[in-house]
Amino acid sequence: MNMQEIPYKTYLNENELPEAWYNVRADMVKKPAPLLNSKTLEPCTARDLEPVFCADLVKQELDETTAWFPIPKEIRDFYKMFRPSPLVRAYFLEKALGTPAKIYYKFEGNNTSGSHKLNSAVAQAYYAKAQGLKGVTTETGAGQWGTALSMASAFFGLDCRVFMVKCSYEQKPFRREVMRTYGASVTPSPSMTTNVGQMINREHPGSSGSLGCAISEAVEAATSLPGYRYVLGSVLNQVMLHQSIIGLEAHSAFKKLGVKPDVIIGCAGGGSNLGGLVAPFMGEKLRGECDYRFVAVEPASCPSLTRGRFAYDYCDTGRICPLAKMYTIGADFIPSASHSGGLRYHGMSPILSELYNQGLMEAVSVKQTEVFEAAQYFARTEGLLPAPESSHAIRAAIDEAIKCRESGEGKTILFGLTGTGYFDMKAYQAFNDHLMGDYIPTDEELAAGFAKLPKV
Amino acid sequence: MNMQEIPYKTYLNENELPEAWYNVRADMVKKPAPLLNSKTLEPCTARDLEPVFCADLVKQELDETTAWFPIPKEIRDFYKMFRPSPLVRAYFLEKALGTPAKIYYKFEGNNTSGSHKLNSAVAQAYYAKAQGLKGVTTETGAGQWGTALSMASAFFGLDCRVFMVKCSYEQKPFRREVMRTYGASVTPSPSMTTNVGQMINREHPGSSGSLGCAISEAVEAATSLPGYRYVLGSVLNQVMLHQSIIGLEAHSAFKKLGVKPDVIIGCAGGGSNLGGLVAPFMGEKLRGECDYRFVAVEPASCPSLTRGRFAYDYCDTGRICPLAKMYTIGADFIPSASHSGGLRYHGMSPILSELYNQGLMEAVSVKQTEVFEAAQYFARTEGLLPAPESSHAIRAAIDEAIKCRESGEGKTILFGLTGTGYFDMKAYQAFNDHLMGDYIPTDEELAAGFAKLPKV
Repeated sequence: MNMQEIPYKTYLNENELPEAWYNVRADMVKKPAPLLNSKTLEPCTARDLEPVFCADLVKQELDETTAWFPIPKEIRDFYKMFRPSPLVRAYFLEKALGTPAKIYYKFEGNNTSGSHKLNSAVAQAYYAKAQGLKGVTTETGAGQWGTALSMASAFFGLDCRVFMVKCSYEQKPFRREVMRTYGASVTPSPSMTTNVGQMINREHPGSSGSLGCAISEAVEAATSLPGYRYVLGSVLNQVMLHQSIIGLEAHSAFKKLGVKPDVIIGCAGGGSNLGGLVAPFMGEKLRGECDYRFVAVEPASCPSLTRGRFAYDYCDTGRICPLAKMYTIGADFIPSASHSGGLRYHGMSPILSELYNQGLMEAVSVKQTEVFEAAQYFARTEGLLPAPESSHAIRAAIDEAIKCRESGEGKTILFGLTGTGYFDMKAYQAFNDHLMGDYIPTDEELAAGFAKLPKV
Repeated sequence: MNMQEIPYKTYLNENELPEAWYNVRADMVKKPAPLLNSKTLEPCTARDLEPVFCADLVKQELDETTAWFPIPKEIRDFYKMFRPSPLVRAYFLEKALGTPAKIYYKFEGNNTSGSHKLNSAVAQAYYAKAQGLKGVTTETGAGQWGTALSMASAFFGLDCRVFMVKCSYEQKPFRREVMRTYGASVTPSPSMTTNVGQMINREHPGSSGSLGCAISEAVEAATSLPGYRYVLGSVLNQVMLHQSIIGLEAHSAFKKLGVKPDVIIGCAGGGSNLGGLVAPFMGEKLRGECDYRFVAVEPASCPSLTRGRFAYDYCDTGRICPLAKMYTIGADFIPSASHSGGLRYHGMSPILSELYNQGLMEAVSVKQTEVFEAAQYFARTEGLLPAPESSHAIRAAIDEAIKCRESGEGKTILFGLTGTGYFDMKAYQAFNDHLMGDYIPTDEELAAGFAKLPKV
């Protein structure tokens, strides 16, 4: 296709919606290390995981050889309410930057959850319903995952109980109302409704919470309520699997356009967006069919890939969950109350951690104020107000495009625009009022976390 | 096309984006009555309007015979960031209602302004820039129009000053931050920064404002600042013209699907969405080519069509603007602090008023609590949290679909889903907490307004 003819937005047709999710582990020679049972320190079995997760999801979690998992019709029908999502050519951003680079973004924000999180939420709610469960519990940081799960639960008639990281709960009161509108209950975490919440509140009075704490509370709630299971919005292999739909659609759209991206950029908290976006491209790289650069972008305030250790660690602060081998800055690390709630996780998807450790992916960290500068610039040129999380990828994409301007290279850049910032206006307000700062943990702070890593 | 094959979402291609706006007045035998100069009470000339509006927009405002206005390339390129917008088949809503009706909605909320308002904002900003102006002023109710204008102004490098109805300013603090992120200044109205604002504050202490007040303030600001013009998000003929893109796209999409809607439903405040949505369909009806039912849905708290008078009235509370012949409940009417800020206008587009008066369109009013019931139902079934304004149309569409269930008719219903409710969570909160009431003005209240209508 003539480059002149590339539209602003490329939508696949609904009948081109992927029919199966792609499991990148199938193409990895060296697989991610297994989850470990937190009591026995032995690799987790299905039996270990089934009290916590739905049976079908446990299968997906543990299967490292099946490359393709068919997407059930009910999930595909739900997807059709908001998918396929557009692959957008950022013509106006290119023009404003004066770069020869060609910038594309895969936009996942055109749904009420405001992000890609709905891709996995509907899958997890579907399997819970199919298993005859009454309800699900979960944690949420920025609120996007909680909203997504509330929407999916309302759709399938499941009860939904959300533990929301306290600083996000306070920064985003209206997120709570969206979840309530979908019939979910929302509790700020750490709360006094669980044993682990009470313990965290005792040990860290006035804690603003973290994803790690909220996960512990949600798992405790799920395992103590009959007919409930816990669901998680990131980190796990099953989530990477569901999110592969992002990359699969992007891959098909590029194929239609006759374009090949040179570099693929995504923000990384637990890794759900990045893992999904890169999946089929990484598959090609692993199979030696095609080469790409992959760049994970994380906040300088919570730098698990760029400054963390690749080690077994607990997935949650309360140490209820299995241990995962991943890049981590320690399950006890309580990140600063940064405005990117979705990226405040101490660890990183074991799949992405393994790929990064094998040198198949790069990582950079960016400062919050630089991220919001990029966000505002993007909003004004591309007409879309991005989520703070997504804006980490925008920052890195802009930096890459500026390098192209300097070198004269016409690279093709793809980044994941995971969502919109409509519930993040308190953060934008701080930026607009020049009241936003940058917090970067010291080496000493990180070392204290590393010292507490489990000896496995 | 086989009905089974109709997708959930129908997107036109970007090269199918309409190349011209449609001016429904060209096909009206009896045209809307002209605007009157508020001092002379004579029909407004271009010379009367040019101190307030850009020259090109004045031409569009006064031209009642040209059917098609080409859309400048710059505006079409901007449109491509968020248009063509999808025509959605509400399969899940149909199923939940158990209705044989086929329900479609034209969704205008997939952009950061959150509504259709961006369609006219970009046109008005473009013409202001083309005329070499420095900036624009405007009013905003719900904040969608102000946001849209801020976005368009940022894009074209214009200064943007927004007077925001005070009750919306207070209910939606984060709307202000979106506008500020796009570089606009936002002032709650009635303010003390204009003569008319001071007067309104004196006469109605503690006033929560109205679109009529805010218009007066914005017009005063525009006409007292050199290089500024006023722009308006609804009511005017030029706005109906720009918004015709909604109906034109919907019309093309239906043609592609081989489907003809029986009834077309839109919420109506000043009429911008409804006027745009119905335009090409109404054209067919006026030319005797095809028949449709058209239904305007307004809030019971501000019932200009269903309980107003068809008479000349001031467009603004301060009586600075020209007079328009329209359905009105009086320029002095201060509506209750309903949560549908975008529908709190005392009048109605002169075009729609004339069409309604000729019996070409129906109108119904709906109560706020019934509207939010419909909104929540829609959110849970269709996975999309609607704006309160849009939810008026949802309410009427659901009522129509329920009638079809009772009668067994498989009508095709189209409604305009003008936007998303992401900045309306205070209203949803009131609904979730069962604290929302209904206000319906008494006959005596309305009569007091009618008594003050100008004698023309």
